[in-house]
Amino acid sequence: MPPFSFTIDAECPETWARAGTITTPHGVIQTPIFMPVGTQATVKSVSPEELHEVGVTIILANTYHLMLRPGSQLISDFGGLHAFMHWDGPILTDSGGFQVFSMGHLRKLSEEGAAFKSHLDGSVHLLTPESVMRIEAELGADIILPLDICAAYPCAPTEAREGMERTHRWAERTLAVKDRYRTEQALFGIVQGAFEPELRRYSAHVIGNMPFAGIAVGGLSVGEPKAVLWEMLRHVTPELPKDKPRHLLGVGSPEDFVTAVSLGMDMFDCALPTRVARHGGLFTRHGRVNITAARFRVERGPIEAECDCYTCRNYSAAYVHHLARTEEQLYYRLGSIHNIRYMLRLASQVRAAICAGTFPAFRDTFLADYTPAPEEVREEQREKWKMARRANRALGRPTSVYEQRKPR
Amino acid sequence: MPPFSFTIDAECPETWARAGTITTPHGVIQTPIFMPVGTQATVKSVSPEELHEVGVTIILANTYHLMLRPGSQLISDFGGLHAFMHWDGPILTDSGGFQVFSMGHLRKLSEEGAAFKSHLDGSVHLLTPESVMRIEAELGADIILPLDICAAYPCAPTEAREGMERTHRWAERTLAVKDRYRTEQALFGIVQGAFEPELRRYSAHVIGNMPFAGIAVGGLSVGEPKAVLWEMLRHVTPELPKDKPRHLLGVGSPEDFVTAVSLGMDMFDCALPTRVARHGGLFTRHGRVNITAARFRVERGPIEAECDCYTCRNYSAAYVHHLARTEEQLYYRLGSIHNIRYMLRLASQVRAAICAGTFPAFRDTFLADYTPAPEEVREEQREKWKMARRANRALGRPTSVYEQRKPR
Repeated sequence: MPPFSFTIDAECPETWARAGTITTPHGVIQTPIFMPVGTQATVKSVSPEELHEVGVTIILANTYHLMLRPGSQLISDFGGLHAFMHWDGPILTDSGGFQVFSMGHLRKLSEEGAAFKSHLDGSVHLLTPESVMRIEAELGADIILPLDICAAYPCAPTEAREGMERTHRWAERTLAVKDRYRTEQALFGIVQGAFEPELRRYSAHVIGNMPFAGIAVGGLSVGEPKAVLWEMLRHVTPELPKDKPRHLLGVGSPEDFVTAVSLGMDMFDCALPTRVARHGGLFTRHGRVNITAARFRVERGPIEAECDCYTCRNYSAAYVHHLARTEEQLYYRLGSIHNIRYMLRLASQVRAAICAGTFPAFRDTFLADYTPAPEEVREEQREKWKMARRANRALGRPTSVYEQRKPR
Repeated sequence: MPPFSFTIDAECPETWARAGTITTPHGVIQTPIFMPVGTQATVKSVSPEELHEVGVTIILANTYHLMLRPGSQLISDFGGLHAFMHWDGPILTDSGGFQVFSMGHLRKLSEEGAAFKSHLDGSVHLLTPESVMRIEAELGADIILPLDICAAYPCAPTEAREGMERTHRWAERTLAVKDRYRTEQALFGIVQGAFEPELRRYSAHVIGNMPFAGIAVGGLSVGEPKAVLWEMLRHVTPELPKDKPRHLLGVGSPEDFVTAVSLGMDMFDCALPTRVARHGGLFTRHGRVNITAARFRVERGPIEAECDCYTCRNYSAAYVHHLARTEEQLYYRLGSIHNIRYMLRLASQVRAAICAGTFPAFRDTFLADYTPAPEEVREEQREKWKMARRANRALGRPTSVYEQRKPR
């Protein structure tokens, strides 16, 4: 068995959806797949055994946070991330670039790489395409990403082009050194190009033709309207090689997951399901509900009647409501388990539909039943989240850069 | 099988230690036993399955918090605490009195009972010996406690006597109405008497002769020196009936547990093991260590080599250190599991030693090996805990009365 492989098991004849199988040194992943985010070598409030139980087959960890604390060298000394965090399934690490660029004033970009100040102690670090390969080798994930430039939204066309071109040059530099480190790690390329259709097509073509094991699409879901996100994918997907897995970085919500699959994406990571859970937002087939709402106070049934997660099998919605209202730690776990299970069940339903040739109908029914959180609710949750960050800062806690990506 | 029974399995010939077996409607408890505190119908950060796994056989829940939120009537409608919180083992509820008295300015005492303002919404409530029986019947615990008066330390002798006498009158009122409610609940009496040897002996005699199913010793571990606590027990225990289980309320730490067993106590509840865990304090056979200390950063072994808990079986101390330093939610769970398991293992070791006739040697060896947290560390942790409470208040979170008892 090769350390990394990807096969396509079924393709939707009407959409760009595919069902595939990825093989990695730590296990097999059936796609489309959602991967929870374990920023600091832990998926917040959930144990590795619980991740396995809800059907998680791959998680994402953030290089930026781990290189600063506890340090990639320490993790390497402990046998890599898998051993360190007691997770024996596949792991994907990002390059740290996204977090560095989110920090704005704390970083300085050059052709060499990205210099930044640690949010923890102000120490100065330089990420280069080469150093990122060393760091990710130390972390030891199954799938790794190269340093790239993630443009902001909106972005001037010149800046968009420069960022993309540098991303391509960095991709080449990354490929040039990659095999100095752990050859069993699969390196994905990252498509950029901001919100310029022409740049997106070009970047997909360039990155798609480099010898990467898979393709990640970056720089999306950074605040642009949904229509723009989908438009970009419509330009990107046709340029990508069919035989490589495609990872849409930082997406998403249940509805975005289903839509993006129909646009040809196979892999998804996002902190949203666990973050909104911690703020009371739990997924149901009809949309996101707020478990702290008064109507759940006396609800005898589970959060969702059809749900097979540990939370729904064992607790009334009223009890989960009570834990959420009293801000009990068990709530964060129960809510996160529910939302992660929801995403994994959705992923396997989507896969089954693709294999059965019924994906378009599945998608349409799902999207008709599922009402996305209204923009005002999202805005409110974004505000709550910002307030929590400010409060943490006021308490002298480390700045929670760990979740820079805005909740949506 | 009667709903509640207590049998003595072994007695230490040199000390007052006993090993016993308590039978309740929800299961059997072997004593001496430590019970974790589940203030708001959840042992903070730990699931019921995890409680079973670490050997917990009974937990304590707080009437004060639950009557206010979500309300005892609601819990009753959900089939009682066991069903509501998904814990099928024995539960003990206190009377709410201790929390009310801890609130000082918010309450008003009379012969009738204790009037107080809710810390949540300022609503006024009256706890009487009779209403407490109704509320605890609604909660549905296996063992319940009557309303009593807990004196502060220090306490003037007159006040101590008056509080004790009222406690005795309330005990009689409680017994008079108890059987109107759920007869399968076992009611324990509470010995008071502040720090007056004569009052303690008298209260033990009076309460010991009332038809209670067991005896709780209250009003201790409220700030007095350890020597005073032990002196009081030396006066109380000889006055107690031998054939009833004895619960020392609000104790304790590993060293206090062992000492109090030798002074004739059978049951112990305390938030300390879980609270100090959340602040980084983890138990080992040599004493409490602070997992956030730099020396754990690279520690490959578990927190304690001999420990059989989930945390020690699966994670290096370095990883637990990392989670604690990054304030990851999984840390609170892993730390709490370790400390609860520590207390339960200690309880079963103590029991085995009593049964084997080797308890005095066990106690002496344990206390010689175990260095209690020095007073300055306790003071520091108390300060941290107060700061966290202040910070929560500043954030507009509900006042954390839930842990009024000071960490020690």
